[in-house]
Amino acid sequence: MTDRLAIIAGTGDLPHRIAASNPGALFVTIKGVEVAAPDGHELVEASYEKLGALFKSMRGAGVARVVFAGKVDRPKLNPLRMDRVTLGLFPRVKAVLGKGDDALLRLVAEVFEEQGFQVVAATDVAQGLSLDATVIGRTPSDQDRRDADRAWSILNTLVPEDLAQGAVVAGGQCLGIETIQGTDALLRFVSESPEHLKLGARGVFVKRSKPGQDQRMDIPTIGPATVEAVAKAGLGGIVIPAGDVIVMEQDEVVRLIEEHDLFLDVRGATP
Amino acid sequence: MTDRLAIIAGTGDLPHRIAASNPGALFVTIKGVEVAAPDGHELVEASYEKLGALFKSMRGAGVARVVFAGKVDRPKLNPLRMDRVTLGLFPRVKAVLGKGDDALLRLVAEVFEEQGFQVVAATDVAQGLSLDATVIGRTPSDQDRRDADRAWSILNTLVPEDLAQGAVVAGGQCLGIETIQGTDALLRFVSESPEHLKLGARGVFVKRSKPGQDQRMDIPTIGPATVEAVAKAGLGGIVIPAGDVIVMEQDEVVRLIEEHDLFLDVRGATP
Repeated sequence: MTDRLAIIAGTGDLPHRIAASNPGALFVTIKGVEVAAPDGHELVEASYEKLGALFKSMRGAGVARVVFAGKVDRPKLNPLRMDRVTLGLFPRVKAVLGKGDDALLRLVAEVFEEQGFQVVAATDVAQGLSLDATVIGRTPSDQDRRDADRAWSILNTLVPEDLAQGAVVAGGQCLGIETIQGTDALLRFVSESPEHLKLGARGVFVKRSKPGQDQRMDIPTIGPATVEAVAKAGLGGIVIPAGDVIVMEQDEVVRLIEEHDLFLDVRGATP
Repeated sequence: MTDRLAIIAGTGDLPHRIAASNPGALFVTIKGVEVAAPDGHELVEASYEKLGALFKSMRGAGVARVVFAGKVDRPKLNPLRMDRVTLGLFPRVKAVLGKGDDALLRLVAEVFEEQGFQVVAATDVAQGLSLDATVIGRTPSDQDRRDADRAWSILNTLVPEDLAQGAVVAGGQCLGIETIQGTDALLRFVSESPEHLKLGARGVFVKRSKPGQDQRMDIPTIGPATVEAVAKAGLGGIVIPAGDVIVMEQDEVVRLIEEHDLFLDVRGATP
């Protein structure tokens, strides 16, 4: 029996990272999602409205496992273009559309599993996406550590609300909690805050997955753009848990951390 | 014995509202804080560096009670200009400067009490600053109520962290949690969010004091500018607890709520 992998590709570098680790994988692009096809991979172009056709091609290509990788915006769906399979799923899709991205992603995973495909996490099919415990760049100061601890504590407090992959704390004061708009919006908000609110500290950005979050469908990810945004916000460093966050383009991340005199603290045990 | 009131005036209309209710009050302006003197009140101009002089004038004027009203930015203090009393307090001020505005405000209240003045809340010396339970404007929809309940729940969750006077929820999704930057910054952030994140709902802004917050020094306040900002953010209404939030220029607030087809839900009992 085959265990061939299909990579359902969103934007960003992650689909290509996974393709590089899985030379035999089928590479699936979605109509309207801008992603370049990697060399040497069998390709399928899918559309949200024709899932029946996608499942058929994947079965024909001997696919047993599926990984979702990269970013995808919420699609505008046109029921008139749907094939029979998609139409059959439409009521379930409609029922979760008002419930947030997590619910929609859970449904997508469920549907692929029902069709006999095993949904796996990006970290299961490519090595070295996340980092083991380490500190990159400058050594965090005591103030940095206290600020990081406070941000962790705020994130832990919000767990029952299923809220917040990130928080920024400077000088003990919370300057931002990540909401549905995501990390970029949070760091832009922080960058627009008056400097005096930091009480002389540089400030720390903590990023982690929400406990209970489906790591197969949505793994928090940082990369060079995150480091640039943290530097632009005037912060002093980033803290993530070991093994929990995908770090893209790691050489470039390390270079930028050092260039901006920041730290990346990958914590082994987190409170 | 006299119970004369002194109004320590920050910016905004609140100091004048209190002066109007207290014709005999001493009106204290602070150097560098822009506030017009009201007609018919004895005036004192104070400076942060000369607190000894301020305490002396207040005693000389027969002041027994003090109310802090209006907004004041963190001052830049110049130790060279300080009088003996301020210099004596300087180590205590320095010790709390890194601890956030709440700690600084608590110290200010403490110092005035030590000097024999009773610090009172704005709501204790002027009637009608806050509102009793009522709904102004349109009737909140079921979705509005659910969104408001979620925002309350998020704020309650954050109580142990001494965080957040406000939160915005739309279609069940949290679009923002108020941090140290305040309400204006939160609503600006929300106004910049993509509309589709609201999942078809209008969204609700909930504002209340943090439990345990010193109401004498910092009462949450909304006014016409808040209503305009809520409308600009595309939200559908505002929820506050009865008696807890100062509502400035109430006629204008009511007019704007109706003009923008919003609601102001003043809740009597809150979860």
